[in-house]
Amino acid sequence: MSTTDPVENLQRLIRCPSVTPAEGGALSALEAMLLPLGFKVDRVVSTEDGTPDIENLYARLGNDGPHLMFAGHTDVVPVGDEGAWTHPPFAAEIVDGIMYGRGAVDMKGGIACFAAAVARHIENHGAPKGSVSFLITGDEEGPGINGTIKLLQWAHEKGERWDACLVGEPTNPDQLGDMIKIGRRGSVSGKVVVHGVQGHVAYPHLADNPLRAAIAMAGALMDPPFDHGTDEFQPSNMEVTTIDTGNPATNVLPSKVTFAFNIRFNDIWTAESLMAEITRRLDNAAAKSDLRPGRQPARYDLTWAERPSHVFLTRNNRLLDSLNAAIEKSTGRTPKLSTTGGTSDARFIKDYCPVVEFGLVGQTMHMVDENVPVADLEALTRIYQAFIARWFADAGA
Amino acid sequence: MSTTDPVENLQRLIRCPSVTPAEGGALSALEAMLLPLGFKVDRVVSTEDGTPDIENLYARLGNDGPHLMFAGHTDVVPVGDEGAWTHPPFAAEIVDGIMYGRGAVDMKGGIACFAAAVARHIENHGAPKGSVSFLITGDEEGPGINGTIKLLQWAHEKGERWDACLVGEPTNPDQLGDMIKIGRRGSVSGKVVVHGVQGHVAYPHLADNPLRAAIAMAGALMDPPFDHGTDEFQPSNMEVTTIDTGNPATNVLPSKVTFAFNIRFNDIWTAESLMAEITRRLDNAAAKSDLRPGRQPARYDLTWAERPSHVFLTRNNRLLDSLNAAIEKSTGRTPKLSTTGGTSDARFIKDYCPVVEFGLVGQTMHMVDENVPVADLEALTRIYQAFIARWFADAGA
Ligand SMILES: [Zn+2]
Ligand SMILES: [Zn+2]
Repeated sequence: MSTTDPVENLQRLIRCPSVTPAEGGALSALEAMLLPLGFKVDRVVSTEDGTPDIENLYARLGNDGPHLMFAGHTDVVPVGDEGAWTHPPFAAEIVDGIMYGRGAVDMKGGIACFAAAVARHIENHGAPKGSVSFLITGDEEGPGINGTIKLLQWAHEKGERWDACLVGEPTNPDQLGDMIKIGRRGSVSGKVVVHGVQGHVAYPHLADNPLRAAIAMAGALMDPPFDHGTDEFQPSNMEVTTIDTGNPATNVLPSKVTFAFNIRFNDIWTAESLMAEITRRLDNAAAKSDLRPGRQPARYDLTWAERPSHVFLTRNNRLLDSLNAAIEKSTGRTPKLSTTGGTSDARFIKDYCPVVEFGLVGQTMHMVDENVPVADLEALTRIYQAFIARWFADAGA
Repeated sequence: MSTTDPVENLQRLIRCPSVTPAEGGALSALEAMLLPLGFKVDRVVSTEDGTPDIENLYARLGNDGPHLMFAGHTDVVPVGDEGAWTHPPFAAEIVDGIMYGRGAVDMKGGIACFAAAVARHIENHGAPKGSVSFLITGDEEGPGINGTIKLLQWAHEKGERWDACLVGEPTNPDQLGDMIKIGRRGSVSGKVVVHGVQGHVAYPHLADNPLRAAIAMAGALMDPPFDHGTDEFQPSNMEVTTIDTGNPATNVLPSKVTFAFNIRFNDIWTAESLMAEITRRLDNAAAKSDLRPGRQPARYDLTWAERPSHVFLTRNNRLLDSLNAAIEKSTGRTPKLSTTGGTSDARFIKDYCPVVEFGLVGQTMHMVDENVPVADLEALTRIYQAFIARWFADAGA
């Protein structure tokens, strides 16, 4: 077994049923690919009260700089309606040049290709002049508490330092070479409880309908837009995701209303400046929501639902230029540098080194019959090969 | 037993535990008061699939016109927290001149006083020159399906015609003589389901968040005001009573949102013109709620929650003048002619004859320790006596 074949690598990974939080043998399979190449492999179990223990893996080849990290995850989302799959989700069957299986593109495929690329580099040129490491979690599709954040902390504490990171998530919308992700919008979620005074609908002056304020406050969050975007980023987008009252009686005014919101924001904002703007809008709307004489501003409680995801944008030339050139050489395509889409673990890695994301075509991720063309696996391996060669060449120059 | 004492009448009625839908002996007690006065009494049981059978009572004294109807109900709301009552709710105990009991003011008290007033009229002047009837339901505090509506239909079908009606509900906010209700606002309720397309909050362009439209539509119902009131009526008042989504995931946009509303409206509107205006506002807001390119107007379903309560206003001079004069003579106070508050069974009666409402002070209605000063019972009986005398005198003139 030589690890140089991404197809073989991926079949071994898919055949491990590693639905979060199960390791399912996937990290052991990866370890078995990396050990023969000379990697030193650490298996790191992260624990936290109230969450399942999670197995993670960190592997490094080389002792010196420059140091290139490849990051990703072997855990996969559940198969969903297994009866709807035309090929078993953990069999990695290849039919007409297409390999089927959960994780094929998200993102066992990326790991399989990068491992193959490193193996080929060693076979052709010897070990890179510097270090290559794999930082692989088993908790990306789950709550993420015991995943990349803790693995980075663990590695950093034992002295690991990196110069650049490539995350192998599926970034291409349609074709290999479409898109590099060079940043991600931030994300902030919150929940608002608006308090009123229950009463009879025929005597609204004796009550205080909290829906009056809640509608004004929710409306103020969605309009006007927070910004109109930047060269690199889409406009920030606020969505109210739920409003709930639970009042079954049409002749009764409720005593409280709850609503929740999420905003995906660009680098015009920090999480802190954005939270201040949200609070300002809520206060304003609460004050103005009921202009009847003698009314006080609506009383409300705001809780931020979780720690915010910070926005980031990578402008590291060496990393971007190497990847760009590798993609153009292999595919003839000039990838779009994008910041669209959801959050990814790159938002944690950016605190340690410049990070970009490039992997397979994402169309079937999380779906029934997730699959990848075998030709794409070979193509992505060649891109990764060229990227490794260029990055170390540039770094050495 | 002479029926001339409203205190004794009311004690007999309160001691019948007639919580809707139970008759509890209350109609039998009333029948026992009316039969000795010469009334012909009909007990009418109304039934409907899916609702409890309800006992109602219709009693008439006299065969000729003019015909004055007294309308009301012997059913009462539940006692609530019985342990919180300082006097048992069905004992009709009198302490320091106050009689305690469920229904004391709403509205066994009104019935007790009107029965006493008729008895005294007969004692002093003989039977009125015309007819007096009692139209008393046991389903006013409940769904009302088997109550006043059906009893009116039953009586009308057997040939009953009325010239005026007094409803004995508690109409006075603070003191006997404060307020006659001469009309009631109408009431229309509706429910709206706004449809969207579920999706991930990071990809709102692939989804369609129905909360965007729902917030705009609910806001458009509450603002601007429907009108600014009339000489006789308060401004119409719209309240959104609930908005519900039930989406627990902050990273998911929901597929639909439901909200409900109720409007209490004045005689600037008919139920029909009002429903048209509501539909116009919803359509407008749905069309404008999302101005992003390529968006269609939000799809929504509107269902009217129940048959509307029509607005009405009584301008019958004989009825109002007689009642007004009786109140001024007995209390020295000029009652306010009001249309405020919730709906009442007067909204059904107005289809048959002019109707007004006047009864006790309503402050303790539906509350723990519902009670009435004994002095108010005597005072209301005297008002009703004077009203009966004047109304028949005017009618005979
Ligand atoms: Zn992934
Ligand atoms: Zn009542």
